[in-house]
Amino acid sequence: MILIGERINAGFKDIARAIRDHDPGPIADWARRQAAAGADYLDVNIGAASRDPADMAWLVGVVQEAVPTPISVDSNRPEVLKAGLSALDGRPALVNSTTADDAKLEQIVPLAAEYGAGIIGVAMDERGSPQDVTRRVENGAKIFVACVEAEIPPEKIFLDPVLMPIRFMQEQTPKVLEAIREYTLLSDPPPHISVGLSNIASKTKERSLIARTFLVMAMAVGLDAAICNVLDEELWAAVATAELILNREIYSDGYLKAFRMRRGQVDAR
Amino acid sequence: MILIGERINAGFKDIARAIRDHDPGPIADWARRQAAAGADYLDVNIGAASRDPADMAWLVGVVQEAVPTPISVDSNRPEVLKAGLSALDGRPALVNSTTADDAKLEQIVPLAAEYGAGIIGVAMDERGSPQDVTRRVENGAKIFVACVEAEIPPEKIFLDPVLMPIRFMQEQTPKVLEAIREYTLLSDPPPHISVGLSNIASKTKERSLIARTFLVMAMAVGLDAAICNVLDEELWAAVATAELILNREIYSDGYLKAFRMRRGQVDAR
Repeated sequence: MILIGERINAGFKDIARAIRDHDPGPIADWARRQAAAGADYLDVNIGAASRDPADMAWLVGVVQEAVPTPISVDSNRPEVLKAGLSALDGRPALVNSTTADDAKLEQIVPLAAEYGAGIIGVAMDERGSPQDVTRRVENGAKIFVACVEAEIPPEKIFLDPVLMPIRFMQEQTPKVLEAIREYTLLSDPPPHISVGLSNIASKTKERSLIARTFLVMAMAVGLDAAICNVLDEELWAAVATAELILNREIYSDGYLKAFRMRRGQVDAR
Repeated sequence: MILIGERINAGFKDIARAIRDHDPGPIADWARRQAAAGADYLDVNIGAASRDPADMAWLVGVVQEAVPTPISVDSNRPEVLKAGLSALDGRPALVNSTTADDAKLEQIVPLAAEYGAGIIGVAMDERGSPQDVTRRVENGAKIFVACVEAEIPPEKIFLDPVLMPIRFMQEQTPKVLEAIREYTLLSDPPPHISVGLSNIASKTKERSLIARTFLVMAMAVGLDAAICNVLDEELWAAVATAELILNREIYSDGYLKAFRMRRGQVDAR
C-alpha cells in the first residue's frame, strides 16, 4: 500500500502562512513527521496561498532538504507542476494530477513523461466530477491510454476514481468501489489506484473511522494507494491488518509493530 | 448485515457446564446480552457437552424463554438439528449447517425445508475443507442447487466459504474474499453469504481488529452475514460505517448511535 502524506497543503492554515512568509519551519516539521510516520510520498501543494510557480519550487526545495522521501507535486496548474518538477533533486516523484480533460492531458502527461515522474489521473473531465461508474471508468481509461501513449508505464500510472464526501454525496461511495474494481481490469499488471482519502470523511464527526473503514474496503477491491493523514495510527493498524488479510504481510503475533517498524520509525518514539 | 451471536456454544466452558448441569442461568444471560446487543439470530450449539439430542431441545427452550430473537440451531448431527428445530415455537430459525457432502445434503436440506428454516451451507465436502477458490465455488453451488431443488428460496440460503485462522492458513484468506464475490453471481438476488468470523482471528493477539477488518473487506465484495462476537462494540461501529459506505444506512452525524439504537439497546445501558 502506497501512502502519500497529505499535510503539506496550503489548505491548512499553518502551511498557507509558511508559504506566504517563506518560513521553512512548519513545512520541514511536517515533512519530518510524515516521513517518520512511514509516508511513501509527501504531497506538496501551494493551493491558494500563492499564484507564483517559483513558490512551488521553493516548497519542494524545503521538503527535499528536510527528508529523502519521494515527493508528490500537487497542483492543477501545469506551470506550477513544472516549477515543482524542475526543482527535484532526482528522487522519485509523482505529478498530482491530470484529469481526462484534453487540455490537461496534452499539457500534464508530457510533463510527467519528461521528468520520469509517476502521474495521478483523476477521473474528472471538462464536465466536472463523475456521478456514475461509467464516467469514472471512461475517464480513467482515457487517462490510462494517454499515459501509455506517452510511454509512461502502468506502474507509474495512478488512477483516482474521485472519492466524494459521504456527508453530501453518499450515493457516490459504492460507485467509487465499483470503479476501483473496474480499473484493476484495465491492464495486467493493473495501474495503481489511488484516492484522496480524507475527502470521504469531510465535515463528519467520525473522520478516522470512516476513512480507515473505506480504505480497507477499497483495498479489498483493488485500491493500492491513498493520499491521507499518515499521522493516524489507527489508519496504519487498519492498513497493516488489510495487508495481512490480502496475504501481502506475513502473520506474526507482533505484525502491527513489525509493519510500523518497517514502514515508519514508531520504535524510536 | 445479519449478525448471528456466537456465544451460546459448548466450546465456551460456562456454556458446556450449564448444558451438562441443565442450568438455564448462564444460557439465558448470554441470550439476553446478545439480543440486547442487536443480534439478528442466536446460534446455539451443544458441541461436545452432550451427545443427547434432547439437550439441544432443552437449550433451544431456554433461549426461547429468555428472548424473542430468532435462533440458529447449530450442529453437524442431523438428529441434533431435528431435535432443536422441533422445539422451536414458530419463530424464524436457521439450520447451521449442511456441507456439500451428499450424505449431509440428503439429510439436512430436507430438514430445513420441512421446518421452513433458513440454512447455512458450509463449502466443505467429504474431502474436508476447501483449499482453493474453485472448490469453494463448486461446493457452494452444489449446496445452492440442492436447496433450490428442495424449494428453499435464495433468501433463506446462506453460503459459507470457510474462513480459516489467519495465523495458520493465511494464504486462504484472500481466497475466501474471492469466493464471496463468486457467490454473489450464483443468482439474482444472490443467496446470503456468511462466515464464522471469529475463526480468522483464532489464537491471534489482535482478535477484534483482525475480525472487524476482515468483516468490512468482505462486505465490500458481498458478504452480508456473520456468526460473530456481537458484544464487540468496535465490530458494530465498523459494520455501521461499512453500511454507510455501501449506502445502505443514511448518513447523519450521529449515525453510529442511530445504528446501535435501531439494532440494539445501547441507549438503555
